[in-house]
Amino acid sequence: MTTIYVITPTYARATQKADLIRLSQTLQHITDVHWIVVEDANATSKLVTNVLKRSKLLYTQLSIRTPAFLLRQKKEPKWKKPRGVAQRNRALLWLRENIQLKKSNGVVYFADDDNTYDKDLFNKFRNTKRVSVWPVGLVGGLRFEGPRCNNGKITGWRVVFDPNRPFPFDMAGFAINLELILENYQAHFSSSVAPGYLESSLLSSLVQDKTQLETITPNCREILVWHTTTARAHLNREPYVKAAKTLEDDKVEV
Amino acid sequence: MTTIYVITPTYARATQKADLIRLSQTLQHITDVHWIVVEDANATSKLVTNVLKRSKLLYTQLSIRTPAFLLRQKKEPKWKKPRGVAQRNRALLWLRENIQLKKSNGVVYFADDDNTYDKDLFNKFRNTKRVSVWPVGLVGGLRFEGPRCNNGKITGWRVVFDPNRPFPFDMAGFAINLELILENYQAHFSSSVAPGYLESSLLSSLVQDKTQLETITPNCREILVWHTTTARAHLNREPYVKAAKTLEDDKVEV
Repeated sequence: MTTIYVITPTYARATQKADLIRLSQTLQHITDVHWIVVEDANATSKLVTNVLKRSKLLYTQLSIRTPAFLLRQKKEPKWKKPRGVAQRNRALLWLRENIQLKKSNGVVYFADDDNTYDKDLFNKFRNTKRVSVWPVGLVGGLRFEGPRCNNGKITGWRVVFDPNRPFPFDMAGFAINLELILENYQAHFSSSVAPGYLESSLLSSLVQDKTQLETITPNCREILVWHTTTARAHLNREPYVKAAKTLEDDKVEV
Repeated sequence: MTTIYVITPTYARATQKADLIRLSQTLQHITDVHWIVVEDANATSKLVTNVLKRSKLLYTQLSIRTPAFLLRQKKEPKWKKPRGVAQRNRALLWLRENIQLKKSNGVVYFADDDNTYDKDLFNKFRNTKRVSVWPVGLVGGLRFEGPRCNNGKITGWRVVFDPNRPFPFDMAGFAINLELILENYQAHFSSSVAPGYLESSLLSSLVQDKTQLETITPNCREILVWHTTTARAHLNREPYVKAAKTLEDDKVEV
C-alpha cells in the first residue's frame, strides 16, 4: 500500500486545537497515513503533541518559525504574505532526510488544518504517478476552482484570478508522488514569488506543464475538498472571569 | 446499547455541504448514532440527502421553515434572534411521534453543523440518566464555559454572561435522556425568551435545578467540544467565470 504523507502547517491561536482535532478525526478514516505537522514556533508544543498522540495516527511533529521578513505587517493584506511556506518546506526536508528513495511508495499532500476534506479524496489520489489535480470548493472567490478535463486529459482551468499562472490552482488541489519530491531535492515553495504563485513555484520544478498532470475522477467535477476557514474566536470576556477564576482554569487545555 | 439521537439544524449557504460532511465524518466514528437533520426550508434538499446517504449513518431528514417573525431583520444583531429553534423543536416532535417510551434506551444531543466535536465526547455522555452537562470551548467570549464540580456534584458555573440564568450553558454542553423528552411531551425550546435563555427554556421543563444535573468527567475540566464557526465563503468572482462557464458547471454540487 502507498503511504499518504499529509503535511499540515499550523500556528498557535484559540481555535488551533479544535481545528487539529477535526482534521485528525478525518485522517483516522484513512489507512496508511503519515501525518507531518509543522508548527510555526521555535519549539514543538504540548498542545499539538497531545492531539497527535490521541489521534493514534503515525505522525511526525516538527517546528520552524516563519522568518521575520515573511511575517505579515500590520495593515498588510492577507494575500501579500503567504502563510506556511517555511513549515511546508521543513516537511519536504524531513521527507528527504528520512525516507529512502525507491524503498517506499508514497504520495505527498498539503492539508491545512481548517480546510474540509471528504475522506474519499485520499484514496482517489493515492495512486498518483507524478502530480494529480482536482477541483477545490469555495476558493478564489468561486464556488469551485480547478481543472477542466476530457477523458482524463486536462484541457484547461476554471479559474478567474490570474489564469496564466503555470499551475493555477490551490494548495488543497494536488498531490505529488513521493519519488518526485525525493529525486528533485531542490524543489521547494519559494517565499519570494508573487501572490498566487506559491503552488507554481514548487510544481514548476517537478512537472513541465499541464500535459504531465493526472486527474483523479473521470470528469474532474466531483468536489471532495473545500477551502473552509474557521472564524477567529473572540475571547473578550475572559478578563471578567478573573475574579471567580481558579488556578485550575489556567491549566485547562482548550 | 443506548442510541444517541444527534439533532442538527441546518440551513442553505455556501459552506453547508462542507460543514455537514465534516460533522458526518465525526459521527461515523461513533456506534449507535441516529442523526436527525432538520433543514430550515419548506422541503428537504437533494444536497443534504446526498450527504446523509453517503454518510452510511442511520438518519432522519426533516425540514421546517423558520417562521417569519423569528427571522433576523437587516441590521438586527445576531444574538437577538436565536437560530434553529423551530428545527430543534421539529426534531423533538419527531422523537415523540416515532420512538416508543420504554421500548428503547436513548440520549438526545443537539449538535450544530459547524461546531467541533471530539469523538470521545459521545461515549462519555451516552449513559446520561437525566441531563448531563460539561464545558464547551470558545463560547460566551471565554476560552471555555461550563460547570464547576466537585466529586461529580455541580458547584457552580464558569460563565460571564448572565450567570443567574436557570441553566447558564451552551447548546453544545448538555445531553438529555430520551425518556425525559418522551415523558414531558410539552417540553420545547421557546422562541420568545430573552437571549441566552433558549437552553433554559427547554431544560426548565425537564429538571428542577443544578442538583439534578450529572457530570461526564470527574473534574468537569476536559474540553471535548468547541463552539467553532465556519467563516462565510466569498463567491464574489463567480460572475467573472460566466463567459467560460459550461452548462455542467451549474450541475456541480459544492
